[in-house]
Amino acid sequence: MGADNLQVRMRRRPVGMVDADDFDLVRAPMPVPGPGQVLVRNTWLSLDPYQRTRMDAERTYVDPMQVGDLMPGGTVGVVVESRADDVPVGATVAGWLGWQAFGVADRAALRVIDPQAAPPSTALGVLGMTGVTAHYGVVEIGRAKAGETVLVTAASGAVGSVAGQVAKILGCRAVGVAGGERKCRYVVEELGFDACVDYKAPGFEAALAAATPGGVDVLFENVGGPVMDAAIGRLNDFARIAFCGNVSQYNETEPYGLRRVRDLLMRRVTLQAFVIADRRDHWPKALAELGAWYRDGQLRGREDAVDGLENAPAGFVRMLTGGNLGKQLVRLH
Amino acid sequence: MGADNLQVRMRRRPVGMVDADDFDLVRAPMPVPGPGQVLVRNTWLSLDPYQRTRMDAERTYVDPMQVGDLMPGGTVGVVVESRADDVPVGATVAGWLGWQAFGVADRAALRVIDPQAAPPSTALGVLGMTGVTAHYGVVEIGRAKAGETVLVTAASGAVGSVAGQVAKILGCRAVGVAGGERKCRYVVEELGFDACVDYKAPGFEAALAAATPGGVDVLFENVGGPVMDAAIGRLNDFARIAFCGNVSQYNETEPYGLRRVRDLLMRRVTLQAFVIADRRDHWPKALAELGAWYRDGQLRGREDAVDGLENAPAGFVRMLTGGNLGKQLVRLH
Repeated sequence: MGADNLQVRMRRRPVGMVDADDFDLVRAPMPVPGPGQVLVRNTWLSLDPYQRTRMDAERTYVDPMQVGDLMPGGTVGVVVESRADDVPVGATVAGWLGWQAFGVADRAALRVIDPQAAPPSTALGVLGMTGVTAHYGVVEIGRAKAGETVLVTAASGAVGSVAGQVAKILGCRAVGVAGGERKCRYVVEELGFDACVDYKAPGFEAALAAATPGGVDVLFENVGGPVMDAAIGRLNDFARIAFCGNVSQYNETEPYGLRRVRDLLMRRVTLQAFVIADRRDHWPKALAELGAWYRDGQLRGREDAVDGLENAPAGFVRMLTGGNLGKQLVRLH
Repeated sequence: MGADNLQVRMRRRPVGMVDADDFDLVRAPMPVPGPGQVLVRNTWLSLDPYQRTRMDAERTYVDPMQVGDLMPGGTVGVVVESRADDVPVGATVAGWLGWQAFGVADRAALRVIDPQAAPPSTALGVLGMTGVTAHYGVVEIGRAKAGETVLVTAASGAVGSVAGQVAKILGCRAVGVAGGERKCRYVVEELGFDACVDYKAPGFEAALAAATPGGVDVLFENVGGPVMDAAIGRLNDFARIAFCGNVSQYNETEPYGLRRVRDLLMRRVTLQAFVIADRRDHWPKALAELGAWYRDGQLRGREDAVDGLENAPAGFVRMLTGGNLGKQLVRLH
């Protein structure tokens, strides 16, 4: 059985907050690459809030998962068998192989990584989907200009932490919202945001107003719910919202009703929802800029890893309840 | 006192639904034009939902009105005294003179109308702010393309009725939402929408789904509240919302909480709020196209007038409670 694959599958649909019991760890046959494909041994697995939305019966960007399906997700790994001419055994590749020890993919669905240029795990964070998402939202949707104020919710999260750093690099005032003093300190002291407001502390709205004395020109919105409402209350005329995530609602059974719709109208706000998978054309430009900033030391980001595929469900629950600090990964062995 | 002016002023801020007692009809000195200005005798006054929002203490696009202020509004009238070289006495002009019998304006703030080309009152409706608003929302924000479905709320209203007709002219399927059977019949039979759904009838959401079998690509949103929520539920991936008005909420003291925020995200919707006063550059193009369509008979619109300045408050309340059919005007004598 040593050549078997190991997978995490959805055992049942979560109701409300996801639980480790909603998953199954199962053995599966070792996959076999066809022509033009490679077999990859995964070394890192990315845990991201969007995975929670796939588990619901409602459609997201794609059709919902079915009970028994492999959990989807971004991965980094090493090629152990290759039937693609330009990818040798031993190459490090980033792809979408999901929560499993081994996976097969078409060459075209993989990005070859130089493990000397940056730690391979960054291909799932600052130099991967996470980073490109943040870059697109701030640069293309937000059109953030030097001197403007960019407000980032879930600022200590994987995407938010990059969004605020990109805003700073562009010459903006970056203000974060995060849960708890420890995260807020990280956002300001390690990531270099100008300010961070704790949404769990009393007087949140007053503190948010004090941190954004000139209002907000760009809102990078990751959480939805009451925090989004508060953030909308700070928007300037002609503000832009890069609507990236709604994570406060992913484990709720009843949606929060957004109250500040009037402000969107009166301030002539543009809200654009996006998922970076739709914007393949943006990846090369974004990765070039992010890579340069990373090498310069202008861009950084903690990683927060759990060990072993069997701990992926617990790590996932931890991320969705805000227990992590930095990009949540699973390290595979 | 025959040379006195007559004005409608805000007597007090409305609480909830506006009432005729919230206004005062007052005599005022006849205004005197300065150099480069003209004195206009108003013949038509435009009643529009945005005027209600100006009466609240909260800021809208501009600072709120104060108690005792003249009610603002679009007007058409005849020049009775001119100190501007290129506007003779007797010229018909459209401007923003507010709820009064006479007003003075700078030449630059007036648009000279040819009363032979179209009835002057149309300069407040299909060939004025109303029409340009509809055109901008469908063409520039909605980017409506032939074959797409355009959903218009408050479809029998002044702006909505033009929005749906523009969508039809562009080759779209135009679906309206209106209150009551009479309005829905008008929208389909007179304005030529493909379908209209009565939001007051039981089974509204099911009827809306049946009227938009291919989903909705462009939502021209005038009302907000639960109707907006239902409309969002029909949006296709990458739909555009031209967010023009929130009239269901203008007389409410507590805002409605918008529930379908998840759909905005998952369907990668772009919502853009706008007021046409910000888009002066769009007026010439829009008025040229609307004028051509009007002369061709492709574009039409009823007008619904009350007589006399003293009846402006009652006409305003009537419009905000949906009692009118067509563009609400006041005819002055």
